[in-house]
Amino acid sequence: MLKFYYAPLSVNARRVWIALLEKQIPFEAIALKLDGDQFQPDFTAINPLQRVPVLIDEDLRIVESFAILDYLETKFPTPALMPTDAAAIAKIRMIQMVCINELQPATIPLMKQMLQMEIPGDRVVAAQQRITTTLQFLEALTDNSPYFVGENFTLADIVAGTLVPSVDMFGMPLTPYPNLHRLINQLAERPSWQTTAPSPETIQAAIGNIKTILATR
Amino acid sequence: MLKFYYAPLSVNARRVWIALLEKQIPFEAIALKLDGDQFQPDFTAINPLQRVPVLIDEDLRIVESFAILDYLETKFPTPALMPTDAAAIAKIRMIQMVCINELQPATIPLMKQMLQMEIPGDRVVAAQQRITTTLQFLEALTDNSPYFVGENFTLADIVAGTLVPSVDMFGMPLTPYPNLHRLINQLAERPSWQTTAPSPETIQAAIGNIKTILATR
Repeated sequence: MLKFYYAPLSVNARRVWIALLEKQIPFEAIALKLDGDQFQPDFTAINPLQRVPVLIDEDLRIVESFAILDYLETKFPTPALMPTDAAAIAKIRMIQMVCINELQPATIPLMKQMLQMEIPGDRVVAAQQRITTTLQFLEALTDNSPYFVGENFTLADIVAGTLVPSVDMFGMPLTPYPNLHRLINQLAERPSWQTTAPSPETIQAAIGNIKTILATR
Repeated sequence: MLKFYYAPLSVNARRVWIALLEKQIPFEAIALKLDGDQFQPDFTAINPLQRVPVLIDEDLRIVESFAILDYLETKFPTPALMPTDAAAIAKIRMIQMVCINELQPATIPLMKQMLQMEIPGDRVVAAQQRITTTLQFLEALTDNSPYFVGENFTLADIVAGTLVPSVDMFGMPLTPYPNLHRLINQLAERPSWQTTAPSPETIQAAIGNIKTILATR
């Protein structure tokens, strides 16, 4: 059986977790606490980069959520989370990459500010601007289709649907972006989202540790 | 014809440039100077995120190098730069993602140090450690095959073969990593590498601008 190393608060791991559930693939989940489990020798032997998620399939060890998602898609193709049309693939990959290269880094200064950590004001403003530009970009890529790209649930939904909601937490509501607002709300209703959402208690208990991690960023 | 927006010093754009050459796809190249061209209204209309590369194929505009690479692979499948085997796909995606998520950010503090910009010493040490761990990880993923993953040239070669050589510039030679050392040297011989390598004069002329960009990172 597949072994899935994750942490309950890791948005990177959550992508893989949702894909496993959506594809109904049996797996054994191993939870790490990111206050030190990732630096222990037994986990470092599995992933020297000391990050979750990791997927083990017999003698194959895969790190990096996007690598795991593409592996799962190839090995367990049904239900498909990627189309075969070139333009649709381009849109899905754009959404994936813009989410991790633009949106995800921009949330760090805002999270620091929310947790009352030291952060220069101009960095906060720059992060807010970057998030606004990215949300406008994503809004323009989407339309009134049932999913982020077309008629079917894809990796674009998994990646954007787990990252975009976090901006609301930083006082940036999604209401100015009607497509995103509708898509995010619909995705939040899926059982795979509800199963994998961290509880408020888990988040509260991890705040000290989140601050420690953010201090290095 | 495809329109390809790039900058001569952009390693992100170089990936796409190499793929276009390797696949022998005709394209029109439009060079941007990253000292301001990317902020001009005409380019912002093309990519609101103000980054290269961008590929335009008729009415489809694609940003993000990895999105463009996957689009080209789907639309122009010969010669293939991706295999169909799940384990090989997992390895190629791991190499792609580890290069951009671990190696590329770690070069920033070292570039700042090289250009005598302000950078705390502990950040430099952390970046060097991160690069060492990543190179060890990549070395362990590779073997004595002719390419990064198996018998054929793939996206793993394009991404690692354009990023990994930069560490040498920071006083971290590749000789302790025999697979990487051999693979990188072989790739550097390819016409697509030689055509796309920035000249020393181009690098020298851009140093002031590189410092300006690095100051915001």
